[in-house]
Amino acid sequence: MRWVMVALIGIVTGTIAFLINVGIHYLRLLKYQGFFRVYELTRDSGTIFLALLVIAGFNVFCSIFAGILVAIEPIAAGSGIPEIKCYLNGIRMPRVARIRTLMAKACGVLFSVAGGFLVGKEGPMIHTGAIVGAGIPQLRSFIWKKLRLPYPYFRDDKNKRDFVSCGAAAGVAAAFGAPIGGVLFSLEEGSSFWDQGLTWRSLFCAMCSTITLNLLLTGTPLVPEAKFGELDQPGLINFGRFSNGGSGGNLWTFPYLFLFILIGAGGGLLGAWFNSLNKRLTIYRMKHVFRKNFFYKMLEVILIAMVTTVSFFILATLLGTCVPVITRSEQQFANSTRNFFCPTGVTFSTIKFNDYFNDLATLMFNSEEDSIKQLFHQDGAFTLPTLGLAFICYYFIACWTYGAGLPSGLFVPCLTIGALYGRFIITAMQTAGIPTAIDPGTFALIGAAAFLGGVVRMTVSLTVILIESTDEIEYGLPLLVTLMVAKWVGDLFNEGLYDIHIEVKEIPLLGWDSPEKVDRLTATDVMNPDLKYIYPISNVGNIERLLTKTKHNAFFVVTAPLSASTEDTTSSIGVSKQSPLLYKRQSMHPIHRTKLMEQRRRRKEALKRKEYKEATINDDGESSGATPFSSGAVEGLHDNANNAFTFLGLILRSQLVKLMHNRIFFDEENGVETQHCIKHEELNEDYPRFKRIDDIELKEEDKRMQMDVSLYMNPCPYTVSYHAPLRRVFNLFRTMGLRHLPVIDNSGKAVGMITRHDLTHEHLHKALHAKSRHSNNDND
Amino acid sequence: MRWVMVALIGIVTGTIAFLINVGIHYLRLLKYQGFFRVYELTRDSGTIFLALLVIAGFNVFCSIFAGILVAIEPIAAGSGIPEIKCYLNGIRMPRVARIRTLMAKACGVLFSVAGGFLVGKEGPMIHTGAIVGAGIPQLRSFIWKKLRLPYPYFRDDKNKRDFVSCGAAAGVAAAFGAPIGGVLFSLEEGSSFWDQGLTWRSLFCAMCSTITLNLLLTGTPLVPEAKFGELDQPGLINFGRFSNGGSGGNLWTFPYLFLFILIGAGGGLLGAWFNSLNKRLTIYRMKHVFRKNFFYKMLEVILIAMVTTVSFFILATLLGTCVPVITRSEQQFANSTRNFFCPTGVTFSTIKFNDYFNDLATLMFNSEEDSIKQLFHQDGAFTLPTLGLAFICYYFIACWTYGAGLPSGLFVPCLTIGALYGRFIITAMQTAGIPTAIDPGTFALIGAAAFLGGVVRMTVSLTVILIESTDEIEYGLPLLVTLMVAKWVGDLFNEGLYDIHIEVKEIPLLGWDSPEKVDRLTATDVMNPDLKYIYPISNVGNIERLLTKTKHNAFFVVTAPLSASTEDTTSSIGVSKQSPLLYKRQSMHPIHRTKLMEQRRRRKEALKRKEYKEATINDDGESSGATPFSSGAVEGLHDNANNAFTFLGLILRSQLVKLMHNRIFFDEENGVETQHCIKHEELNEDYPRFKRIDDIELKEEDKRMQMDVSLYMNPCPYTVSYHAPLRRVFNLFRTMGLRHLPVIDNSGKAVGMITRHDLTHEHLHKALHAKSRHSNNDND
Repeated sequence: MRWVMVALIGIVTGTIAFLINVGIHYLRLLKYQGFFRVYELTRDSGTIFLALLVIAGFNVFCSIFAGILVAIEPIAAGSGIPEIKCYLNGIRMPRVARIRTLMAKACGVLFSVAGGFLVGKEGPMIHTGAIVGAGIPQLRSFIWKKLRLPYPYFRDDKNKRDFVSCGAAAGVAAAFGAPIGGVLFSLEEGSSFWDQGLTWRSLFCAMCSTITLNLLLTGTPLVPEAKFGELDQPGLINFGRFSNGGSGGNLWTFPYLFLFILIGAGGGLLGAWFNSLNKRLTIYRMKHVFRKNFFYKMLEVILIAMVTTVSFFILATLLGTCVPVITRSEQQFANSTRNFFCPTGVTFSTIKFNDYFNDLATLMFNSEEDSIKQLFHQDGAFTLPTLGLAFICYYFIACWTYGAGLPSGLFVPCLTIGALYGRFIITAMQTAGIPTAIDPGTFALIGAAAFLGGVVRMTVSLTVILIESTDEIEYGLPLLVTLMVAKWVGDLFNEGLYDIHIEVKEIPLLGWDSPEKVDRLTATDVMNPDLKYIYPISNVGNIERLLTKTKHNAFFVVTAPLSASTEDTTSSIGVSKQSPLLYKRQSMHPIHRTKLMEQRRRRKEALKRKEYKEATINDDGESSGATPFSSGAVEGLHDNANNAFTFLGLILRSQLVKLMHNRIFFDEENGVETQHCIKHEELNEDYPRFKRIDDIELKEEDKRMQMDVSLYMNPCPYTVSYHAPLRRVFNLFRTMGLRHLPVIDNSGKAVGMITRHDLTHEHLHKALHAKSRHSNNDND
Repeated sequence: MRWVMVALIGIVTGTIAFLINVGIHYLRLLKYQGFFRVYELTRDSGTIFLALLVIAGFNVFCSIFAGILVAIEPIAAGSGIPEIKCYLNGIRMPRVARIRTLMAKACGVLFSVAGGFLVGKEGPMIHTGAIVGAGIPQLRSFIWKKLRLPYPYFRDDKNKRDFVSCGAAAGVAAAFGAPIGGVLFSLEEGSSFWDQGLTWRSLFCAMCSTITLNLLLTGTPLVPEAKFGELDQPGLINFGRFSNGGSGGNLWTFPYLFLFILIGAGGGLLGAWFNSLNKRLTIYRMKHVFRKNFFYKMLEVILIAMVTTVSFFILATLLGTCVPVITRSEQQFANSTRNFFCPTGVTFSTIKFNDYFNDLATLMFNSEEDSIKQLFHQDGAFTLPTLGLAFICYYFIACWTYGAGLPSGLFVPCLTIGALYGRFIITAMQTAGIPTAIDPGTFALIGAAAFLGGVVRMTVSLTVILIESTDEIEYGLPLLVTLMVAKWVGDLFNEGLYDIHIEVKEIPLLGWDSPEKVDRLTATDVMNPDLKYIYPISNVGNIERLLTKTKHNAFFVVTAPLSASTEDTTSSIGVSKQSPLLYKRQSMHPIHRTKLMEQRRRRKEALKRKEYKEATINDDGESSGATPFSSGAVEGLHDNANNAFTFLGLILRSQLVKLMHNRIFFDEENGVETQHCIKHEELNEDYPRFKRIDDIELKEEDKRMQMDVSLYMNPCPYTVSYHAPLRRVFNLFRTMGLRHLPVIDNSGKAVGMITRHDLTHEHLHKALHAKSRHSNNDND
């Protein structure tokens, strides 16, 4: 069943990728055809600005569309990769994986790419794939609500995260034709540990997606030279084969290796600067643009569109150099050159003589993919000023664009900028008379890798993606060296752009390593000692008050204290001070009660187990509700050892609300047997749209009822000892994807709770500071 | 410092790989030159058996050498990959990573490959890399024992495992020229979760190894056509470019995809059969050959050598077909054809006419790499009977060879067999008149992938390695499909060959997923309830008795019982029944004692912390000894709650022995202050060669001493609640690389211990059985 799901995810992702591609293709065709027709008409009459008007109008039109879509669903802005990263890290991001986001993102990217922005469609594609991954297994709940298919629900965090991983892999596979790279990407960003089953599934998903896309691409007239059924169009980006690939061997010698290291270092520097500029811009933007209303956002987007279009047009017209076309008949990209104000040649029986093209226009009035191809494959055509100008122009505009209210990928712009950078260096070297045996396109590729590595700082997965999308394994080693150097150099200055955006948005993402110096901290130092707890059997009114007054998402279930005096030792607004009736019961014979309860529960469990044999114990550590108590074996050994506040389990806010909503409580007088039962699946069926406590109306008599939560709590979440080193806490969170980690003392008492927010850099620094001050005081 | 280490590991691995390669090259040259000289002399005189004698003699000679080396160090037998897998899984394998093993393995593989066995040098190369990884960071302890370099020791399990991962990646990189594949391999097999730092380090290590190897290969006359400094010899195996690679595009159409799926399924079947044959053989061999003395092992090895040589010779002589040479001047492998009894042609100004070669001899009297290249690139040269015969011959002999007392890789033989299989199918199809557009070499590649996938069942990493070593990214998708199908089909029947060998050796490897049906089990069901515990302050003689009488590797440290009556509730031969003096002390004022202790300890800690600021808290969960207690914050909250048998910490056997050896104990009369201190590093300095308890002589008065272990125990290992589902236990073990997991009840009491052996399939099935019987009884 899972495999079918996964295949479906792959196929749907591939199809959406295809649709986006077709859309962009035709929009672009429309744009450039219109533009060049007007250009042809007006070039001699001096009213060339009309052509500018056409293209600018088109772009503004597109930008308005894209802006409106983003305004409808703000999370569709940006590349989506930071969001996916957070999601896979275990953070609950509202609205990230909704159908509406999918629509906004997919249509938005159509317009933003077609609108001439310096954005790529790859990041959004990955986001799209992830949404599909999240959505497909839950289709039933949207469409066939009534149809009861005999498959499990997959409606908990762990499963959903796995499907999202698969979807992201499929997205990468569709975008770059890189199934292996996709799997690595989703593993690197998302999964907590290498799970072989998941790896296989995401690989399968990525393959389905690639093959689907391939079939569709070759089956439609979009790629004219491909025949249906051939397997050579695995992705949307294809950089083509390099001219000295295939010539075998003598490509890389050691002197070049040093050159690559230098280029890598340069790319890292440029990337770090790009990131720091963009960070400042983003902070400024969040303060001054996004705070204000929708109109400002739109205005910025339109402004970007105008500036991009006009500056490109003016630069291409005034500063472009006319370069003769070197005819290489086998090159399919030859028709993407632009001859913009350059003399056209004479065509003599299919061979053109004296044909020129405008190099700057070729770079600027093309899709970015075509520009990259030109940079990679066009032999000795671009002049130094052209490359420099284009580089500067692209660099700043791309930096401005990323983060605006647009669906915008980062990959392709970075590759373009990097290719310009690499090409600039090689051209400069050639101009300076330094002989190079390697063709300039290769340098463009190395430069592209260096800059991309400097900006996003991805690692192995990025290398694999680049290798897969360039179709050249021979470049593996040089690319690897370049990327590594770029990352190192960049890391000296700041973080990767995605991480910067996550940081700016103040999302508590857990990084790879726990920050340094935290070795001195222990769980006690970071935990929140303000316990919010309930008893296994509590008063409903009290629970409601607890839920209303606090914002915590998980609550301890602890044994009640034996005597009233111990009750106030912890500062808590819990339910401890009320319910004398309950209290009496417990203080009378707590041990007998527990034992009785235990037996009754066990009998019930046995009955239940027969009924729902499918209900497996869920090991997510978070969402598992009613794990049956283990029967037998150690029984009687510890029943008598439960002291006050002994930790019994964890219950989530959503579960409490659901229990309350379904009126799972009992009247004190009738006894606990009168409490209804609810299935474990029902408890979580609202996922991910849980009810809120405010939505529930309780009558006065309900509030006097008691609720037995012991059946529904998670009796054995991951816990940590109070003097455990922080590194362990970090590892547990990171590896198991936890959200709450109870801290327990030696005797099993709950002493605090650690959440993700307690592990952010900021919070840790504060804790460290507090601790060092504390110990200084001790020494004095 | 780590990075320097890692670079060193890479460089050394690359150098060793190069040396092995050179050795094999010259031994082989010697062999074939000698053989063909005798062959030339005798071919017309009818005494051809003399040539057979020469080659057989040489091979037997080699096999004796290899056999002796393995006899010296038995763990050097086999490919080493299962051993590395177990090591990285967290199992302590004795002697796996010693220098002596390295020597035996490296020299052994030299002779076993040169001796004409059907073995590869890749597995051993990976093992070699891993040993280098384990050894380099500990060089100091061998060589510069006196030299105190200012770097940390890296002498605990976690760090060592990381270095071994790097080394294994370097080994793969050297063997296949596949740095990315190497990293994936070591991640897939080894690491518990994707640690970005580790990934980078192993990538760097793999790159160093590849570049070193490349430099050495191009710098020596071994590869005559390579110029020094070129980067085109990244690995020892290079399959060369495919003839229709580079022609662009039209390679894969959908009908072929189905063909690939069929080939993959066939490869899976053949692989599964291979595995099952080899399993039976290995079991038989372990019973009847390895049990007996050294002589039998040697005899088997020599027998294999004889059978291989003689059968190849006879087959090549009698059944080889003479095939005309198709001259393709650009092919460097053309000189590896053998014309063995076939008419040689006339050489006319560098072009040969009417030259024939014996196809079977070409396959059989070559290095396996050359055979593979022939199969991949020789156009239409092999006849159907030749291929079939060679396939059968290789299949059975390789199956026999793997697992014998030889260093023997599995990759290359499997690739050869698979290539024969693929080539056989395409030749059969061509003979049957089915037209195919793809050149037969491609089919050989697909077949090789299918069979290899069917045998070893590796996944993503295997694909990447194959892609990297074939230098053809275009084949990525077809290879992926084939491998996936092969794995699926094979998994229907049995496990991968490495896993089979691990299983046969009864090593408690933890697989990827917990086995099915265990969802019903909890920690209680699998734990060992037979507690072995000591108190924080115990009598030395009792500890010694405990260590001598049990074989456990970790012991609980628990609080002493308050009254004598509770003492016997757990069945234990611990130290609970003695030491009235200690007992009196504790029962008198346990709380005061603990508090006093705690304060004293904390003061000591503060002093210590100043002294060794470098000593960080180790999060390995196993080997961390004296983690300082956290100061402050929750103090006083729980000191009074420590009941009898409350779990305080875990102490390892090795630590206890070390403490005893260093006489870290005190006389009852002088008080605990007189106990010496020992640094945390010293506690583990003997790693991995810990002293045994038998090595320590204790005097009678020593036995009356008391030992305070509270400073040296690990106060917060990972623990698990007694009713935690087994899946969680599994995840913790798998992810954190644990060896012991204490089971704790709600009130913090120790109730049992789970070790790796408790999680083997066998043990789990037993537990499941016991549980179901138990619950049936309950129902009756």
